[in-house]
Amino acid sequence: MSKKAFGLIGLGVMGKSLARNLAGKGTSLALYNRFVAGKEERVAVQFIQQYPELQAAEGFEDLGAFVQALELPRRIFLMVNAGAPTDAVIDELVPLLAPGDIIMDGGNAHYKDTQRRMDALAARGLHFMGCGVSGGEEGALKGPSIMPGGAPEAYEAVKEHLERIAAKDKNGAPCCAYVGNGGAGHFVKMVHNGIEYAEMQLIAEVYALFRRTFQYSPDAIADIFEAWLQTDVASYLLEITVDILRVKSGDGWLLDLVEDAASSKGTGGWATAAAAELGVSATMISEALFARYLSAVATERREAAGKIPHESPINDQNRAQYIMSDEYVRHAYQLARIVNHHQGFHLIQVASITYQWALNLPEIARIWTNGCIIRSRLMEDLPGILNTGERLLQDPILCQRAHLTRFFLVQTIVVAMSDGLDTPCLSAAIQFLNGYINADSAMNVIQAQRDYFGAHTYRRRDTGEVVTGGFRPV
Amino acid sequence: MSKKAFGLIGLGVMGKSLARNLAGKGTSLALYNRFVAGKEERVAVQFIQQYPELQAAEGFEDLGAFVQALELPRRIFLMVNAGAPTDAVIDELVPLLAPGDIIMDGGNAHYKDTQRRMDALAARGLHFMGCGVSGGEEGALKGPSIMPGGAPEAYEAVKEHLERIAAKDKNGAPCCAYVGNGGAGHFVKMVHNGIEYAEMQLIAEVYALFRRTFQYSPDAIADIFEAWLQTDVASYLLEITVDILRVKSGDGWLLDLVEDAASSKGTGGWATAAAAELGVSATMISEALFARYLSAVATERREAAGKIPHESPINDQNRAQYIMSDEYVRHAYQLARIVNHHQGFHLIQVASITYQWALNLPEIARIWTNGCIIRSRLMEDLPGILNTGERLLQDPILCQRAHLTRFFLVQTIVVAMSDGLDTPCLSAAIQFLNGYINADSAMNVIQAQRDYFGAHTYRRRDTGEVVTGGFRPV
Repeated sequence: MSKKAFGLIGLGVMGKSLARNLAGKGTSLALYNRFVAGKEERVAVQFIQQYPELQAAEGFEDLGAFVQALELPRRIFLMVNAGAPTDAVIDELVPLLAPGDIIMDGGNAHYKDTQRRMDALAARGLHFMGCGVSGGEEGALKGPSIMPGGAPEAYEAVKEHLERIAAKDKNGAPCCAYVGNGGAGHFVKMVHNGIEYAEMQLIAEVYALFRRTFQYSPDAIADIFEAWLQTDVASYLLEITVDILRVKSGDGWLLDLVEDAASSKGTGGWATAAAAELGVSATMISEALFARYLSAVATERREAAGKIPHESPINDQNRAQYIMSDEYVRHAYQLARIVNHHQGFHLIQVASITYQWALNLPEIARIWTNGCIIRSRLMEDLPGILNTGERLLQDPILCQRAHLTRFFLVQTIVVAMSDGLDTPCLSAAIQFLNGYINADSAMNVIQAQRDYFGAHTYRRRDTGEVVTGGFRPV
Repeated sequence: MSKKAFGLIGLGVMGKSLARNLAGKGTSLALYNRFVAGKEERVAVQFIQQYPELQAAEGFEDLGAFVQALELPRRIFLMVNAGAPTDAVIDELVPLLAPGDIIMDGGNAHYKDTQRRMDALAARGLHFMGCGVSGGEEGALKGPSIMPGGAPEAYEAVKEHLERIAAKDKNGAPCCAYVGNGGAGHFVKMVHNGIEYAEMQLIAEVYALFRRTFQYSPDAIADIFEAWLQTDVASYLLEITVDILRVKSGDGWLLDLVEDAASSKGTGGWATAAAAELGVSATMISEALFARYLSAVATERREAAGKIPHESPINDQNRAQYIMSDEYVRHAYQLARIVNHHQGFHLIQVASITYQWALNLPEIARIWTNGCIIRSRLMEDLPGILNTGERLLQDPILCQRAHLTRFFLVQTIVVAMSDGLDTPCLSAAIQFLNGYINADSAMNVIQAQRDYFGAHTYRRRDTGEVVTGGFRPV
């Protein structure tokens, strides 16, 4: 049998979909999945028999044989769990490889782990790449967005295969492009997921306002969101929410039977920590993350709800006067999304400078226009805006939009807050925006306090001098 | 000369104050500060000549002689910069020490670094302790709050000296108590600083509302805050803010000459990252941190202010109708502070479980009642409340307070937000509180979305089953 062009390790949900996508696009494949007799299924062998596109693929249960089946330089894509499992597979693989071989990690690894693995493998003449993959099961199968980072020459050796399976943007170019050196690919994927956390949270908050305060049914909300899909707020996440809201269960909605405790798998936490470390305000991500954490203490929340009664000035008699046009809410939602994207791209930009990655922000926005979970009509505008090198909220059109719609965001939050609803991401958006355009903030109070108790100094506006001690009584 | 009971390395602002405090309380001292001829001042030698209480202390410029001057087991307190400088001093010290000797790190080290150093030194029979110290220059001199963590037997050998210099609580007990094993002392100090970030931010936000929206002068605001010091919102930070607001410069206030860009030195970022890692919502800390980061891009803010005009429904004609009683604002402020302390102690509690530190929360609150920057009347109530083992916002009295004053917090934010002010911490407080008492939140939307695109499963309320796939079209 002739050697295979591409190897894939780990046949979970995403691994299987990627394998079918690769094979369907003409990449010859070797597949490996761990098999312990009596404990696991013979996935690698059984899987290739299930799909016609995998006819030419070969399944392996022996890692050595899998490696031997690959042409040089070997291209090996890992789709295994992040952390220790990834290190375990790498440790097993490395002795079997030859200089110049390439391992691509397609999971959500922490970018610092990716950098560490890259350095360790480089010392042995091997390439390691962090390849973020977004799109979920369906994206992986039909065309994901891929964010590969690592050595440029390693990318040259794998790009044909990755770009072929990636989604295509509106001009037909693949939603896969070399991101940058080191952990850049995984960093960018992490921020992608952070933006995703906030995008999801914003939809949940708008839903809560419609459902609880306006007392719209899930079907009525689905109708509104469906209409919104024809406007500039259209996105994949809004699209799937329409599907979700329409699913019935008995006389009611399936959604109402879903426990209101949201989980998370790490990237949102990493993105929050990265922002904290890099000195960038990423309140949309942190609020979305912490909203999930708060939701997870469901029993405690219910106990607290019994102790602090929920009172609202809004009741069935006066509700009508609180109901806003859903166009107002749409403007509020869109402005919050703009703030979210502003913060996300700012975080990427600062990381690019800090780690000397020379990232191409417009290109990152472009590969996010299709295939990935945060694809949206807004994202399609961003490559053009980011081309100027400006932050999003410095762009004239987005500034004008912020100016014209800020009031809608304020009013939406006022109504929700008055009714006792939590809308942490909508709220974080107006707080950030108000802070961002505050030319004369009260943060001088904090510098004065810091100097008072800790002699941390402050800068005088009049003289430009950095001084200490002016506020302490002698 | 007889051997000294206690050694101190690093004579910066805090190191000097601690040395004077220790010597004044009768601890015999050896002091060491790096001295490179021609480059640095002879601090260790000069310093002891400046203060009568240091008459019996000895200054060293040679580390070996410093170590030899100490009685066994040696007790060496480090007050050097966190990170590489701390490692450098430790590396130099270790070969000079004998088994059983104790190094205490009094700086703000990251708790994971402290754990790493502790493990490394334990392998050589040495003790390493992370000793958080709060109180700033004045606290260090007159009585700080000290948070020592490490091996209990190491604490026994140093406690006499530390407890003697610590501030005293209202019952005369020292504000210094053994915190727990490993990095516990530095973790608790890190959360202390996180709470401090939010406490400072809340004062700045209340000031901004009074100053900008209500158009009160700094003197008028100082009068209000001074009156508040007689109430349950009294705190050290509010007290120093009164001083700060009264300082004049020419015809105006010195505060107005201070650049509105707030700095940070690491602990707020670490606390945010720790909350993200440990799965705890700490929005008050993250919002305070990110507000500082946002303030730091001052030029960018001013550019944005020029592009997105600040418009407000509040003007000189109608301002009076927006001005709330400062009692209302005080209630809002206090409720936000309660949320801040709730989150901070929750973070400590989860860390205690995760790292098996068995932390004594009431005791941590007690040692924070004096000496430290976040000492306050509220803190004095917390040991009693935390004794029940409940989270703060489950306490009947705090719940009742939250119930009675939630409306004031909402109204305060509504007025500030309407006027275009950013009050991210006040806002985070109501968002958290509303989320905390939301027995039926919209977070089920997020679980449904996660399952839709990523097959991440969801739990059904009716059957308790964890299932997947219910929302996807077939």
